[in-house]
Amino acid sequence: MEYQHGGDIYSQEILWDFSANINPLGPPEGVKEAVRRSADSCGHYPDSQCRRLVGELARHHQLPKQEILCGNGAADLIFQMVFAERPGHAWLMAPTFSEYGQALHAVGTQIHPILLRKEAGFRLDADGVIDAVQDEMRNPSFLFLCNPNNPTGVALRRGEMRKLAAFAQQKGIRMIVDECFLDFLEEPKEYSMIPDLQEFPHLVILKAFTKLYGMAGLRLGYCLTADKDLLERMEQVRQPWSVSSVAQEAGQAALGENEYLEKTGKIIREGRAQLKDGLKDLGFWVCDSQANYIFFQDTRAGAQDGRLGKACRERKLLLRSCGNYQGLDQSFYRVCVKTKEENEHLLQMLRECCR
Amino acid sequence: MEYQHGGDIYSQEILWDFSANINPLGPPEGVKEAVRRSADSCGHYPDSQCRRLVGELARHHQLPKQEILCGNGAADLIFQMVFAERPGHAWLMAPTFSEYGQALHAVGTQIHPILLRKEAGFRLDADGVIDAVQDEMRNPSFLFLCNPNNPTGVALRRGEMRKLAAFAQQKGIRMIVDECFLDFLEEPKEYSMIPDLQEFPHLVILKAFTKLYGMAGLRLGYCLTADKDLLERMEQVRQPWSVSSVAQEAGQAALGENEYLEKTGKIIREGRAQLKDGLKDLGFWVCDSQANYIFFQDTRAGAQDGRLGKACRERKLLLRSCGNYQGLDQSFYRVCVKTKEENEHLLQMLRECCR
Repeated sequence: MEYQHGGDIYSQEILWDFSANINPLGPPEGVKEAVRRSADSCGHYPDSQCRRLVGELARHHQLPKQEILCGNGAADLIFQMVFAERPGHAWLMAPTFSEYGQALHAVGTQIHPILLRKEAGFRLDADGVIDAVQDEMRNPSFLFLCNPNNPTGVALRRGEMRKLAAFAQQKGIRMIVDECFLDFLEEPKEYSMIPDLQEFPHLVILKAFTKLYGMAGLRLGYCLTADKDLLERMEQVRQPWSVSSVAQEAGQAALGENEYLEKTGKIIREGRAQLKDGLKDLGFWVCDSQANYIFFQDTRAGAQDGRLGKACRERKLLLRSCGNYQGLDQSFYRVCVKTKEENEHLLQMLRECCR
Repeated sequence: MEYQHGGDIYSQEILWDFSANINPLGPPEGVKEAVRRSADSCGHYPDSQCRRLVGELARHHQLPKQEILCGNGAADLIFQMVFAERPGHAWLMAPTFSEYGQALHAVGTQIHPILLRKEAGFRLDADGVIDAVQDEMRNPSFLFLCNPNNPTGVALRRGEMRKLAAFAQQKGIRMIVDECFLDFLEEPKEYSMIPDLQEFPHLVILKAFTKLYGMAGLRLGYCLTADKDLLERMEQVRQPWSVSSVAQEAGQAALGENEYLEKTGKIIREGRAQLKDGLKDLGFWVCDSQANYIFFQDTRAGAQDGRLGKACRERKLLLRSCGNYQGLDQSFYRVCVKTKEENEHLLQMLRECCR
């Protein structure tokens, strides 16, 4: 199977990887220390219930432990949810993160794409979603939303999301909100639906340590929902030890890293502005991302052949080509926000490639 | 969901865990070193194809790389295989490792148990299996075999296994042989079907690093088959980054640990004899295990209430109760072979409990 995601620094020589949306600071020292420490405990089976980590997460999010399930990355939980429920129908934004579609495809779900349009800045319109879903309502069904969306970086405020959740609840549709990148937004509280979980039991929220804490190699995600029966059914379609003990220890260490998160917020805020300005100066169309990655289009003639990405690869720099997303072509790219110097290097390389 | 496996040292205070079948030496130093080293690389996404590790495994087993797929433990691959194929029918030994049944149950497969009988020493009879399967032949179907079987420790020689593989091939049945514990046998080559993979494309072999290299906390398994289409379909029902970068590095380190394996062979051989003799001296019925774990029955009156396991737990020692296996009750237990001193402690505790 061809590899279609970012972060493939293994099949080619890459010195500058802008394709994977990971915290540019790398894992915090506490996480690295936990990994080193885990060398001494890795001879034991992991706790299949991730009890300590779940306890920490419950405190962190002020939620009951019974409403939290950890997985081998958020992607693991997407597959578990889909295998547990086997929805007949699902609505997905296009473009969006491809794992929703891959998991749904595996169980034969009929997928209804809701196209996000460039003219609207790839912004999701809650009323438009409600219209699209009402037209074809069938049970059981899933509505996947990624907030902020990947690859666009566009986020929908909590008020709009609540409108969608109320609609989904009323129609008996399960609404899954992927908030894996939400903590990179400037005001996460204005966007997150975590406070709404008790009100909407049909709501499931996906979270990951991978991106925020720069620990993509460890694989650790979790989901939150007031629907405990769903979590029970998910446990029945998964192996008991999906989360390694290394990841469990690293996750516990990560939750205490407040200073690291403050530093992250600053570097992403500044870097996002730096990259947006720089990409616009190059004449590209730049999406109004609020996340730790920027989605843009090379609007030069002939750009649909992916020439910009190829020219960068020749310079050992990797962009995320978005040509494999529905509704996009190879003139669209996503780059992650990194440190000031790395961002400047990216812009410099792009300037060279555009000459 | 109630926890039904060994190794649960998290929900109770356990000082002596004999319930998880892991190498008593703990992970080799090279593996621990790889874990510590991975702290510096865990900020990157893992290689979704596990290319380096697959390359090492290909050399190790003298097989083409295209016939190897790595997973987040062997259990991950069991689920992938079952989700990819969705067999209508499957034949399973009873008792055997419960994950086959759990995965099959999740996709609605009709499971046909083949009961292993105590009077036959829980030994699998190849002709008996052929009779059982012929009676109810339907396509598509799976035949799961665990060699040596878990929890009994009884192994079937390669000649018998080949007879079953030829039968399965002829009938169009996929035969999955779990060899996760096979390297703990005294003469693995007399039992392993790895040399037969090319001849039987319907054959899939499961292997794990978890047990042999004492690295259960890291989660790493793989499967081998000449049916490349199956591996392709399995990749379509899994997330791309199921194997952490820590596990990939640890696996590569493990493959070079030949001295460790020799030491393991000696300690298991001696410990197995020590435990079998000791358990028989206590008056228990002891299965003729060839693996790194011993399956036995407390034959005292009233033992079906699990009193032996409870008495051990009071002494902070954990046996694997086998009461949740089909065809068994709570008078059956499995214990793993550990170091001479640990084994002696187990026997001492059991003597106390039986007084």
